[in-house]
Amino acid sequence: MTVWSRHDILMMNRAVQLARKGLYTTRPNPSVGCVITQNDIIVGEGFHQKAGEPHAEVHALNAAKEASLGGTAYVTLEPCSHFGRTPPCAKALIEAGVKRVVVAMKDPNPQVVGRGLAMLTAAGVQVDIGLLESQAEALNPGFIKRMKTNIPLVTVKLAASLDGKTALANGKSQWITGSEARQDVQRLRAKHGALVTGVETVLIDNPSLNVRYDELGGLTDVYDEKDLQQPLRVILDSKARLTGKERIFDIESPLLLVSCTAYPDEFTAKLPKHVEKVVLPDIKGRVDLHALLAHLGQCVNSVMVEAGATLAGAFVEAGCVDEIVLYQAPKLLGAKGRNLLALNDYESMAEIPSLKVIDERKIGVDTRLVIQLGHI
Amino acid sequence: MTVWSRHDILMMNRAVQLARKGLYTTRPNPSVGCVITQNDIIVGEGFHQKAGEPHAEVHALNAAKEASLGGTAYVTLEPCSHFGRTPPCAKALIEAGVKRVVVAMKDPNPQVVGRGLAMLTAAGVQVDIGLLESQAEALNPGFIKRMKTNIPLVTVKLAASLDGKTALANGKSQWITGSEARQDVQRLRAKHGALVTGVETVLIDNPSLNVRYDELGGLTDVYDEKDLQQPLRVILDSKARLTGKERIFDIESPLLLVSCTAYPDEFTAKLPKHVEKVVLPDIKGRVDLHALLAHLGQCVNSVMVEAGATLAGAFVEAGCVDEIVLYQAPKLLGAKGRNLLALNDYESMAEIPSLKVIDERKIGVDTRLVIQLGHI
Repeated sequence: MTVWSRHDILMMNRAVQLARKGLYTTRPNPSVGCVITQNDIIVGEGFHQKAGEPHAEVHALNAAKEASLGGTAYVTLEPCSHFGRTPPCAKALIEAGVKRVVVAMKDPNPQVVGRGLAMLTAAGVQVDIGLLESQAEALNPGFIKRMKTNIPLVTVKLAASLDGKTALANGKSQWITGSEARQDVQRLRAKHGALVTGVETVLIDNPSLNVRYDELGGLTDVYDEKDLQQPLRVILDSKARLTGKERIFDIESPLLLVSCTAYPDEFTAKLPKHVEKVVLPDIKGRVDLHALLAHLGQCVNSVMVEAGATLAGAFVEAGCVDEIVLYQAPKLLGAKGRNLLALNDYESMAEIPSLKVIDERKIGVDTRLVIQLGHI
Repeated sequence: MTVWSRHDILMMNRAVQLARKGLYTTRPNPSVGCVITQNDIIVGEGFHQKAGEPHAEVHALNAAKEASLGGTAYVTLEPCSHFGRTPPCAKALIEAGVKRVVVAMKDPNPQVVGRGLAMLTAAGVQVDIGLLESQAEALNPGFIKRMKTNIPLVTVKLAASLDGKTALANGKSQWITGSEARQDVQRLRAKHGALVTGVETVLIDNPSLNVRYDELGGLTDVYDEKDLQQPLRVILDSKARLTGKERIFDIESPLLLVSCTAYPDEFTAKLPKHVEKVVLPDIKGRVDLHALLAHLGQCVNSVMVEAGATLAGAFVEAGCVDEIVLYQAPKLLGAKGRNLLALNDYESMAEIPSLKVIDERKIGVDTRLVIQLGHI
């Protein structure tokens, strides 16, 4: 096991900080940071900003210029070895004369893992790996899961009172949570590649389901509106009930309609350009969620489910959920209110989903819990 | 406003600490602590241990002996001025020659407030009041409420999953919360003067509803079993359905049966000595909770409600609840599970109960919230 110097740790920590600056903009690429040092002094820094633009290493090398010769590069992810939209970073590091590369984590894609490191080693560059690995992994949980499994990371967002109700019996719910929690939901949306909801929610609540820039709180200090990507809005409409008149169609950000039966031609003919459709297999008349995730996994790292009790529960029951983010409001709505999550009719306590609360904090007056799901 | 010296604050803080030692034993008396100093050095300490035994001031005076002459006494509650089961403490302080008495809070009983202070002042003793008043009030919230209103403080204890369920649809619930939370409930019971539940809970779960000494966690290091008082167990049995064969009758700690109709003579004839009965008026066939609290207020400072969704909800709806203690387990039981709290069918979000979470902390794997209720 490598013993890391204090300097190494500080530099990789800086690289992780730099990577974070891309958390809302690099999709579907991972967020990566890079620091280049020469005699323990930082001579260049960079992070990946946007798919199609230079990788972190290239930004750092451009900043360091000739000072990278004989220097050390700290990168949060194994440098790429292939020509994609940009030339391979491993090659760029070699050509700049970097003599040591410290990498937090290997490429998660089992088909390419280690190739960038091998390219560096073959060129005589010293390669050390594993420094601040878990911090680096935390930057890109969706990217990592998708690279390994072709399935995106799935987060179910829920909001409820202390007695687990999402609305009064008559459906009224404005507002269960406070404005800070609602801003936090906007930031959560902005981080995800896709937002999934059910047709019932669209027909009843008529939401726009986009990220509203002016509701992002502090993020607006950091990002211009044009830098933020809108998540792909995905509507599960198994019986093809949408009419085209719903508010989601009015907003020009990507929209994917998922049905188990084809839409009528007159509906299809009128669809705006930002709308796509796909027909997927059903299970008991509802979209097969595993098929859905396999489909989304072609282009999306992370999926956020914002849905009613039935669909949210179906995701949990299908074993498709990695995390639940639960906003809990200090309110009591009473037994007549609407339930949070439809699950099986369990016979024993041993059958209920196994959970682990990995983060719990105040967001304004509400509490946000981040819950990891085990096997159910 | 009095400006307190650092020494004064330290001494009253010590008196508050001493008072806490009586939190589980002084019922229905308040917990009180006393420190006596002479030239800024502690010469005597004491706290009230048990109703009928000497008050805090007497213990401290006995410890200080002649050193109390010309000294200062710090007491968390106004010294008494009347002959009860013990002689008045104000008189004892005067006779011991104490020249200054610092009092954290006045006697909360509006009929006697200020009399102890007046007795001291009349005897030429310097009296300063209000030091660490809120800490002193926090020692005896039930006593203070009952002295002012003749109604005990009411705390509803609830335990639920994150989606607000107390059990599976089939009633199974062992265990929603972990062992630490269940120990905490035992300590909560041990602090209360009475424990209220409904006949349904008794008939279905057949609980013993007593404090189990070996489940008190750290408290057993501090208290002998004989020092702890069992709370009065109160069963709301409006239609007099108890048979006498339930487990509550087997345990020889005080039990009060509250009905709206008299029990049959053959039931009454066989009742053990630790059981009392009272018939109270009903509202729509159920015990009038305001009448219940007025009755319990004759002898009990604090009431803990451990009941099902219907009775717990009825207490909230009746505006009878001061606090809810909610143990929240990191579990999800799903919409089919049993609800936490029956409340009205509200028409708008403005009608739901107004709450304030005043404490939130981890108890083992669970979270305990202490919630204050406003007007509903």
